[in-house]
Amino acid sequence: MKAQDYPAPVLELITRLKRMPGVGSRGAERFALWFLQHGRTDARALAAALQTAADVVSACPECGFFAQEGKLCTACDDPTRDSSLLCVVEQPTDVLPIERSGSFRGLYHCLGGKISPLDGVMPEDLSVQHLLERVHQHPGCEVILAVGSDVDGEATALYLAELLGRENCRISRIAQGIPAGAGLGHADAVTLMRALDGRRSLGS
Amino acid sequence: MKAQDYPAPVLELITRLKRMPGVGSRGAERFALWFLQHGRTDARALAAALQTAADVVSACPECGFFAQEGKLCTACDDPTRDSSLLCVVEQPTDVLPIERSGSFRGLYHCLGGKISPLDGVMPEDLSVQHLLERVHQHPGCEVILAVGSDVDGEATALYLAELLGRENCRISRIAQGIPAGAGLGHADAVTLMRALDGRRSLGS
Repeated sequence: MKAQDYPAPVLELITRLKRMPGVGSRGAERFALWFLQHGRTDARALAAALQTAADVVSACPECGFFAQEGKLCTACDDPTRDSSLLCVVEQPTDVLPIERSGSFRGLYHCLGGKISPLDGVMPEDLSVQHLLERVHQHPGCEVILAVGSDVDGEATALYLAELLGRENCRISRIAQGIPAGAGLGHADAVTLMRALDGRRSLGS
Repeated sequence: MKAQDYPAPVLELITRLKRMPGVGSRGAERFALWFLQHGRTDARALAAALQTAADVVSACPECGFFAQEGKLCTACDDPTRDSSLLCVVEQPTDVLPIERSGSFRGLYHCLGGKISPLDGVMPEDLSVQHLLERVHQHPGCEVILAVGSDVDGEATALYLAELLGRENCRISRIAQGIPAGAGLGHADAVTLMRALDGRRSLGS
């Protein structure tokens, strides 16, 4: 006698769900059973959405954010945006947090990563050449380096600052300091050092 | 200027992923971005698996466990199983935990729920008639009531025990007591009462 297991299509579904980040065997089984017991319509709708997204979503040819195949993303396609402001981020996923803050009205440039010799990521692996071309197209623009503040991010910012220093553009780096709403007790030494370094005078 | 958001197919994918149990907005976004950035092949494979599972998986016509459309499940299809033992569970998802324990070699019967007047679930909503038919087919069999030990589960077990009392079969209920590996300190009063009630004599 063989111990009973799920039918092959259910096991295949569990295997596929388990590939998702942070989903283990139990979670994948739970999702699969939910789809079978309560969500056949949801299963078909999710299947269609996955297929469509995998087929038609690609990188915006201008900035690298998500866009529909062969089209510009909504920011690059929006003539009311300030094309003299170019915000350089590591990943396309960094764009929306900035958008949602509502404090930026310029364009973006997604590098596709950060310089990290240990991981084998060199400047030529990133969208650096295209960044220079975009800066050429908008002489006098401001390039805001919004890459992360870890070691690799800082190295990337320094590298880009040096490279862009020869171009007709202003270069800035997003501020580092204590996060909004946080007490000093939770800030580490490096953050406090940078917050003090970057202090701004109040009053006239 | 409109704030940038994901392209429509990505938003649709996020919406669909969010329907999964326990997945919120952040989790759905994380899954969607993972599929787009690292898992296009995985996205297509999961889409196919969902479609197949939704199309070909149905309830075993005999016991109600998952089976491929039009076929018996592997347990009902296995002639080496002991057909004189019928384990009655609430849901198809209750079958595998028992299978995995390796301590049961009989057949199953999934009721499809438990009697719960407050939720509008009455005996006629469950697979009770078919259970009687199966008992008729195996005179002298033992019916093990393995429904849950909550109020509705107990009511269901009592109802079935009364109904099956008129049939040619033995009726048993799975034991209630302290879980394996647990100290008494963690057991509630009802569990302890039932563990004492169900005590077994040791020695000869």
